[in-house]
Amino acid sequence: MGCAPMGHILYDEVMRYNPKNPYWFNRDRFVLSAGHGCMLQYALLHLAGYDAVKEEDLKQFRQWGSKTPGHPENFETPGVEVTTGPLGQGIANAVGLALAEKHLAARYNKPDAEIVDHYTYCILGDGCQMEGIANEACSLAGHWGLGKLIAFYDDNHISIDGDTEIAFTENVDKRFESLGWHVIWVKNGNTGYDEIRAAIQEAKAVTDKPTMIKVTTTIGFGSPNKANSYSVHGAALGAKEVDATRQNLGWPYEPFHVPDEVKKHWSRHTPDGAALEAEWNAKFAAYESKYPEEAAELKSIVTGVLPAGWEKALPTYTPETPGDATRNLSQTMLNALAPVLPGLIGGSADLASSNMTLMKMFGDFQKATPEERNVRFGVREHGMGAICNGIALHSPGFVPYCATFFVFTDYMRGAMRISALSEAGVIYVMTHDSIGLGEDGPTHQPIEHLASFRAMPNILMFRPADGNETAGAYKVAVESRKRPSVLALSRQKLPNLPGTSIEGTTKGGYTITDNSTGNKPDVILIGTGSELEIAVKAADELRKEGKTVRVVSFVSWELFYEQSDEYKESVLPSGVTARVSIEAGSTFGWDRIVGSAGKAIGIDKWGSSAPAGKIYKEYGITVEAVIAAAKQVS
Amino acid sequence: MGCAPMGHILYDEVMRYNPKNPYWFNRDRFVLSAGHGCMLQYALLHLAGYDAVKEEDLKQFRQWGSKTPGHPENFETPGVEVTTGPLGQGIANAVGLALAEKHLAARYNKPDAEIVDHYTYCILGDGCQMEGIANEACSLAGHWGLGKLIAFYDDNHISIDGDTEIAFTENVDKRFESLGWHVIWVKNGNTGYDEIRAAIQEAKAVTDKPTMIKVTTTIGFGSPNKANSYSVHGAALGAKEVDATRQNLGWPYEPFHVPDEVKKHWSRHTPDGAALEAEWNAKFAAYESKYPEEAAELKSIVTGVLPAGWEKALPTYTPETPGDATRNLSQTMLNALAPVLPGLIGGSADLASSNMTLMKMFGDFQKATPEERNVRFGVREHGMGAICNGIALHSPGFVPYCATFFVFTDYMRGAMRISALSEAGVIYVMTHDSIGLGEDGPTHQPIEHLASFRAMPNILMFRPADGNETAGAYKVAVESRKRPSVLALSRQKLPNLPGTSIEGTTKGGYTITDNSTGNKPDVILIGTGSELEIAVKAADELRKEGKTVRVVSFVSWELFYEQSDEYKESVLPSGVTARVSIEAGSTFGWDRIVGSAGKAIGIDKWGSSAPAGKIYKEYGITVEAVIAAAKQVS
Repeated sequence: MGCAPMGHILYDEVMRYNPKNPYWFNRDRFVLSAGHGCMLQYALLHLAGYDAVKEEDLKQFRQWGSKTPGHPENFETPGVEVTTGPLGQGIANAVGLALAEKHLAARYNKPDAEIVDHYTYCILGDGCQMEGIANEACSLAGHWGLGKLIAFYDDNHISIDGDTEIAFTENVDKRFESLGWHVIWVKNGNTGYDEIRAAIQEAKAVTDKPTMIKVTTTIGFGSPNKANSYSVHGAALGAKEVDATRQNLGWPYEPFHVPDEVKKHWSRHTPDGAALEAEWNAKFAAYESKYPEEAAELKSIVTGVLPAGWEKALPTYTPETPGDATRNLSQTMLNALAPVLPGLIGGSADLASSNMTLMKMFGDFQKATPEERNVRFGVREHGMGAICNGIALHSPGFVPYCATFFVFTDYMRGAMRISALSEAGVIYVMTHDSIGLGEDGPTHQPIEHLASFRAMPNILMFRPADGNETAGAYKVAVESRKRPSVLALSRQKLPNLPGTSIEGTTKGGYTITDNSTGNKPDVILIGTGSELEIAVKAADELRKEGKTVRVVSFVSWELFYEQSDEYKESVLPSGVTARVSIEAGSTFGWDRIVGSAGKAIGIDKWGSSAPAGKIYKEYGITVEAVIAAAKQVS
Repeated sequence: MGCAPMGHILYDEVMRYNPKNPYWFNRDRFVLSAGHGCMLQYALLHLAGYDAVKEEDLKQFRQWGSKTPGHPENFETPGVEVTTGPLGQGIANAVGLALAEKHLAARYNKPDAEIVDHYTYCILGDGCQMEGIANEACSLAGHWGLGKLIAFYDDNHISIDGDTEIAFTENVDKRFESLGWHVIWVKNGNTGYDEIRAAIQEAKAVTDKPTMIKVTTTIGFGSPNKANSYSVHGAALGAKEVDATRQNLGWPYEPFHVPDEVKKHWSRHTPDGAALEAEWNAKFAAYESKYPEEAAELKSIVTGVLPAGWEKALPTYTPETPGDATRNLSQTMLNALAPVLPGLIGGSADLASSNMTLMKMFGDFQKATPEERNVRFGVREHGMGAICNGIALHSPGFVPYCATFFVFTDYMRGAMRISALSEAGVIYVMTHDSIGLGEDGPTHQPIEHLASFRAMPNILMFRPADGNETAGAYKVAVESRKRPSVLALSRQKLPNLPGTSIEGTTKGGYTITDNSTGNKPDVILIGTGSELEIAVKAADELRKEGKTVRVVSFVSWELFYEQSDEYKESVLPSGVTARVSIEAGSTFGWDRIVGSAGKAIGIDKWGSSAPAGKIYKEYGITVEAVIAAAKQVS
């Protein structure tokens, strides 16, 4: 209730939107980073005329199947831009939304046609302010000079555990100034409507810095007995206190009832919003006739319809092509795709030269060069992921990617889960994917990470083995605009293997070589990524001894399990229980594939600091180990 | 090389340590948060006389089995306090080390006996500064007024991707001032030895704030061609440039050769260190005779020998005991253990009243009350985990715990992995462990988290079902001082079940009820946590229909798989393939337990916002589903 004045002014006076088309491209974006206060946002969407939130929906707050879940979810409620609740994510998403606007405006606006032009507003609370992700993202927002990002800091001094004095005594204003933000303080946020209006005016006038408006409020303002208490943080007032509050505020109406005069006041947003969109559509039509090339690109970003035939840009490989690390192959794909995908934009958390993520034809997205497409995130993995979520959810044709070492997904898992949940098709370029990175040692060597993403819903975990599979992984990842992809890529050089293909990769698991007939090999060897080569070599040896051996690449489990039963049976026939898997990572989960009679070769302990070849040998990730296991199970 | 002057002054002039006993309790602690520069630390440990790092070890840098891995690892190299490399962890560990010192000093020092008295030093770089975890931990350090924490910020303007200008233009000094730190700037860190000495003096004089000494250095200082370049960030100079550097610095000696005069200069640290420890031992003996009670407590913390019989404080339960949420039972355990475990200290990330983590007999650890044992971390999960690692690794008898909602382990996984790797026995109290939390919805409902920790090496994942199992989980967690534990606890009330026990829980998986004979039940039902009740009810129904049914609690997979083959066979006989598991989380990994012929009931999609009972029903986590599956498989 303390945020009601800010919310009211934003939705009723400041923001430009069309309630009947929540996806209108040039709308102002609003993010409630303090997602537990979502009833405020639902009420504002309802008043503003959004169809997703009718009176009935408000009454179904936090109930099964409702459009009004316990935290704002973009995939449930049109009008909600991003998914918040986990603290700090929202403000970082807002940085991504503002980055997207600044980038598109710089790239497509013309002196005679300002076709991209909107603000991004955000409300965040003390909880968001304490989270490290918020500091990461806000440091970048200051660095990039995102002048059209305006954040309201709801400074109510209360978090769940009580007064923020118990754990939060830093000087937030000064910290934001140090991060390069313009800071304004509204001392009476409960009733200071004019001060809030003036602050927004001032914020808009500062075009080279993001602005934080600190609004000092009373949590639960209006409630005579519970205001200024942690007991209203994300919890209901209770019937008795609701009555007292109504009386206190002089509000005589029934619950959920919107008086006619209020309805009438807000009703103008429907025609006004339609007019705003119509005006923009006319402007875009003029732009299109004058700048057809730019308009076509922008249209692809706005609509999410990727340019026809884009996937033809992906190269293919034969076993004769010299081998390469999949991280380098990934860079080849990014550079092949950049010219044909206008929405491709991204970068690394200070590891561009290790993750191989630079698009060579572009410069850096920076304060003075926002039209460029290489983003420098600094060592800020969590902020990076959430900023990419914001970019992805800004417009459906954006294809944001970001990168770090695979092990440091641990730093950004909060944002990656939100990618998966909120249907943000971010591509996570994760290199140095196993003990194969060698000398950096166990702090840098992923073990459990593949399993941890295979267990997560709605995310695609890829571990390509060579050039064709890296191309295939990019094909699916780019197409998957509502599902994020994680690409685990090698530091070390890998050969191009016989039988790999883009087509096979899109099925997740497929046979690459087989010397059996009738779908009945003596044994099936299953590998992923850098260990597929080991499986192929072991198969060669076993075949020399007269065995029939199938080698299966299991590049993406999720895709495989989405195939038809018939297809799955054609790759992993239920009659063949002699199965051996090899992967330089945890064996956790592999039982599903190798079955009770099979054997999973992997690593269920920490890695080591040593040259990669030495570690592989000491850990038994070898051709010999596969041969021995194959003989044991078949 | 830019950090060499700071390192030299610290190890040669400032720090108090005993190289022949790297674990001497009252030593000053040093943390190299910029862990990629570990050769400097190895060289200093070698010069100072630590036995772990001989000349031979320096030559084996980053080789198999060496004491000098690619990043500092406390479990490999005595003298290294914590494990760093993943950026930002080290400075947060340092906050934990300094917290531990401040707490023990306040609790045990007497006007006539300052028995706890050491500093914590840390070197961090630009990379650490960008990480959110560092801001979280440093905000707390300022809030707590950790006056004996002195951090050196190696301000070399270079990160892996090049000049920090590309992504890091904030005002770090001002940010640290806003966080409540004292800030000093040494402008010439390459050669300004006296300035560094003076800064340390000044820092020690400021006792109510931590100090950050910004030391402006040149990366690779001394290298004539590569200094001030990103090419030396974590990479070797190369033979040619090493020669040029030697010449430039006027250093004529062979590689790894320490000239006699240098050896002689440093040799005093061995007798000096022994004298420091002897002096302290005498002081402690006097303390012990005067304050036997306090000395006994402190001794337990210093040695890690827990007070005899502490586990008798854990309560037990019968099916007649009224049911309760396991988060509440966890609070009962914490409050039962607090009086008998002097090293128990911890708290929550602003969710104490939801996670139920308050020790009721103690107040809050705060700047003015550092002797208290409830820690208020604010909404800073990642910093919290790393601070607890620092506490755990300060002294082996500390039993630090920390808490948030289970889903937010995603925010702190970087620190949790380091707990597991660096053998820090932190207890992670993770409540609201499934869809059973209800209305908060999918952003707050864990799905893949149990699987993600079961796949991680050296961590114990517990999901207790009732009072006895919560007690059992605490028994193992407290005993496990070199392995962290994660306790997934329910928000909702659960009954005390027949057959559960502390003893059974310590085995990870055990039979709680069975109406079969000869280790041959018709079907085995396996559950964890809140779903064990469902398995018990399904068994009751199936038995009414004449089936023999065993119900197994699988409270900790890791512990079960560490039991003897004989024991495992007694619980899950290989001849009984009719197995059904039920758990309100991802089925990923359950195939290992239920086998190819069994069935795993779980949730492989996102949760929902609705009352818990409704979600359980809609998601098929029900008695009926277990009965149907049991009939299908048996």
